Amino acid sequence: MPIVVQKYGGSSLADAESIKRVAKRISETRKAGNDVVVAVSAMGDTTDELLDLAQEVSPLPPPRELDMLMTAGERISMALVAMAITDLGHSARSFTGSQAGVITDSVHGRAKIIDVTPGRITEALGKGHVVIVAGFQGVSQDTKEITTLGRGGTDTTAVALAAALGAEVCEIYTDVDGVFTADPRIVPSARKIDRISAEEMLELAACGSKVLHLRSVEYARRFDIPIHVRSSFSQKTGTTVTDQPAPEGVPVEAPIIAGVAHDRSEAKITVVGVPDRTGMAAKIFEAVAAAEINIDMIVQNVSATETGLTDISFTLPKSDGPTAVQTLTKIQGEVGFAQVQYDDQVGKLSLVGAGMRSNPGVSATFFSALAAAGVNIEMISTSEIRISVVTRDEVLDDAVRAVHTAFGLDSTEGEAVVYGGTGR
Amino acid sequence: MPIVVQKYGGSSLADAESIKRVAKRISETRKAGNDVVVAVSAMGDTTDELLDLAQEVSPLPPPRELDMLMTAGERISMALVAMAITDLGHSARSFTGSQAGVITDSVHGRAKIIDVTPGRITEALGKGHVVIVAGFQGVSQDTKEITTLGRGGTDTTAVALAAALGAEVCEIYTDVDGVFTADPRIVPSARKIDRISAEEMLELAACGSKVLHLRSVEYARRFDIPIHVRSSFSQKTGTTVTDQPAPEGVPVEAPIIAGVAHDRSEAKITVVGVPDRTGMAAKIFEAVAAAEINIDMIVQNVSATETGLTDISFTLPKSDGPTAVQTLTKIQGEVGFAQVQYDDQVGKLSLVGAGMRSNPGVSATFFSALAAAGVNIEMISTSEIRISVVTRDEVLDDAVRAVHTAFGLDSTEGEAVVYGGTGR
Repeated sequence: MPIVVQKYGGSSLADAESIKRVAKRISETRKAGNDVVVAVSAMGDTTDELLDLAQEVSPLPPPRELDMLMTAGERISMALVAMAITDLGHSARSFTGSQAGVITDSVHGRAKIIDVTPGRITEALGKGHVVIVAGFQGVSQDTKEITTLGRGGTDTTAVALAAALGAEVCEIYTDVDGVFTADPRIVPSARKIDRISAEEMLELAACGSKVLHLRSVEYARRFDIPIHVRSSFSQKTGTTVTDQPAPEGVPVEAPIIAGVAHDRSEAKITVVGVPDRTGMAAKIFEAVAAAEINIDMIVQNVSATETGLTDISFTLPKSDGPTAVQTLTKIQGEVGFAQVQYDDQVGKLSLVGAGMRSNPGVSATFFSALAAAGVNIEMISTSEIRISVVTRDEVLDDAVRAVHTAFGLDSTEGEAVVYGGTGR
Repeated sequence: MPIVVQKYGGSSLADAESIKRVAKRISETRKAGNDVVVAVSAMGDTTDELLDLAQEVSPLPPPRELDMLMTAGERISMALVAMAITDLGHSARSFTGSQAGVITDSVHGRAKIIDVTPGRITEALGKGHVVIVAGFQGVSQDTKEITTLGRGGTDTTAVALAAALGAEVCEIYTDVDGVFTADPRIVPSARKIDRISAEEMLELAACGSKVLHLRSVEYARRFDIPIHVRSSFSQKTGTTVTDQPAPEGVPVEAPIIAGVAHDRSEAKITVVGVPDRTGMAAKIFEAVAAAEINIDMIVQNVSATETGLTDISFTLPKSDGPTAVQTLTKIQGEVGFAQVQYDDQVGKLSLVGAGMRSNPGVSATFFSALAAAGVNIEMISTSEIRISVVTRDEVLDDAVRAVHTAFGLDSTEGEAVVYGGTGR
């Protein structure tokens, strides 16, 4: 019997009624002749409520105990989903991450899945049960401690289970219809993408698209698991994320561009007046790395020859801003720069598409569109299939719309522009 | 280092503030030079809230999933207590019932503890941690499923841990100052008992005293673990439950009577006009037992010779009443009795004291007191150290007060009556 793995997030499990609706959908999948394994998140706002409780008890709760606390959320939702499925006449078994064999490293709060040993799941499926697994959690290999995978980790749980069980597909149920060519709240004419490569989805997720958890896409790509992102509130087909060739008969669109992502979660730091000598940039980035801050884009200005000084700018998560400024201020004397500037009024726009590999025209269209919209560009970075720019926060929405239109992604304009024959 | 096991119930863990207060008490015990192991219940009304959620999702939730759901409650409270203790400068580790090695049978919802294998606890204590254990839960020996011990099960968890760890004492923290000679809400002059034998405590718990969970007393008696029942809201010494001799220098009171318990949770069924032939009573009680109903007291009237018919009355939990009536009605034709009468307006009063073994005067005093108070007795049952009677519900409170006074248990009257030299 084919195995289907489904993931339901907190917004799909907000209350008893939502849980019953989810159970009905699971029941239909089961009745269609599939073995069904479901990964669930905590109900609605449970995770936030538990975090608030922890804050009330201790300003800096130990990570081990925080994980112990957080995992109660999925335990509640998985048991309730199992009850609701049983009520529809199926037999169901819920398993914690540990029982489901989700083995992780020992980093509390953001553990990585090392292995999945789904013996109990396979056994339960063999007995005809629908299996519900607590998402977002596992047990550490060395210390047998309960761990969590970090926010959005249930996507990863679902994909990891799909890989370990050899599932046909991993369905990620969410509150939107799929992956769009841009955020529909900013670009009302954004189109739902029917099919996207894992590579492109990775870039979109890394650049601010919140539909799928980045790590789940990495996992799916590594194990070649097709993901189907769709809404738990409708029966519409969503977006299939896969590098596998489209099945026969399915028309393959091959647009250059998959979509436009934007991100307002980053800030920009500029270190002004850095002496242009070997090793100075290294000192700065070593200090920032030692503070465990992830840097995204970096730009170093061409040194002004007469002064021998240069400016270095980089972007980082806003949440790491204060620590970074503090860290840099500490090494100011040693490096001898003039000043640290912190700017959180920036936004990032990214254009993603596998087709741009062989289409030199893409950057021209991109920058013309931005220029025509009067958008000033502060930083640029590119990968083989992505161009990202940093702009002022207040022009970001305009920039997204301008680029979206320039590449013919608006649904009202009909089909997307197809530059060449670059299939995906 | 001596090991102290403490248990905190839901009312002591109602919110973040209560949890901090409990943490302070645990911290003091630790600072006094003890290894501390704490068993916790779910916070405040969590268990009821989870049960309500289950009811909303399914009218008859599967017991396995109900246990999975319920155990989330202690998981939340234990993590929060561990955080609060850490915040006071100690190191703490929380463990689920399964992690703590609480092994049970497989009866979901009312599992019995078979064994405790506290390897992880001992290891954590060895590393200097305060250990917090989720009460009320365990893991089944055969199926490795999560189980719960039934309402009040955290008392039993605490005593079982104390036995397995060779603890000095098991402290049960609750919202009253200890065990009283009667319920202070009914008898305002009731005295707190300083020391009571496990045997007497067992009878009191079985007869309606709600301070300690019956099974925890059985467990403590079997493994000879002293229990100290006390309030988490004050520093007062509570009640020590033990069969061990009092330490040198502690004055030993030896009153005949430990206390008066009452119970309003039972109903009375009378099967009227049962043919007085061999095997008829057996048929009735076999049918009731087959319906898994626990019978408490039984009275069979002397048969009226002229009719050859007799009446059989018994008491049972009110919650089992409808099932019992239904079960009996089904066998009415076969047994040939006239009628089933159901009466839930009854109350039970029990007088408990190890001293009554060798004091024939006790029953005389007891029945005189009830007669003087105008209390009509409907059923009587006795054990070596207990006399119980069933009365009308509305006279029960008067009856309790009359008996309490007759045996000199009122604190205003000074010392309790000491009949003979019957020590306990």
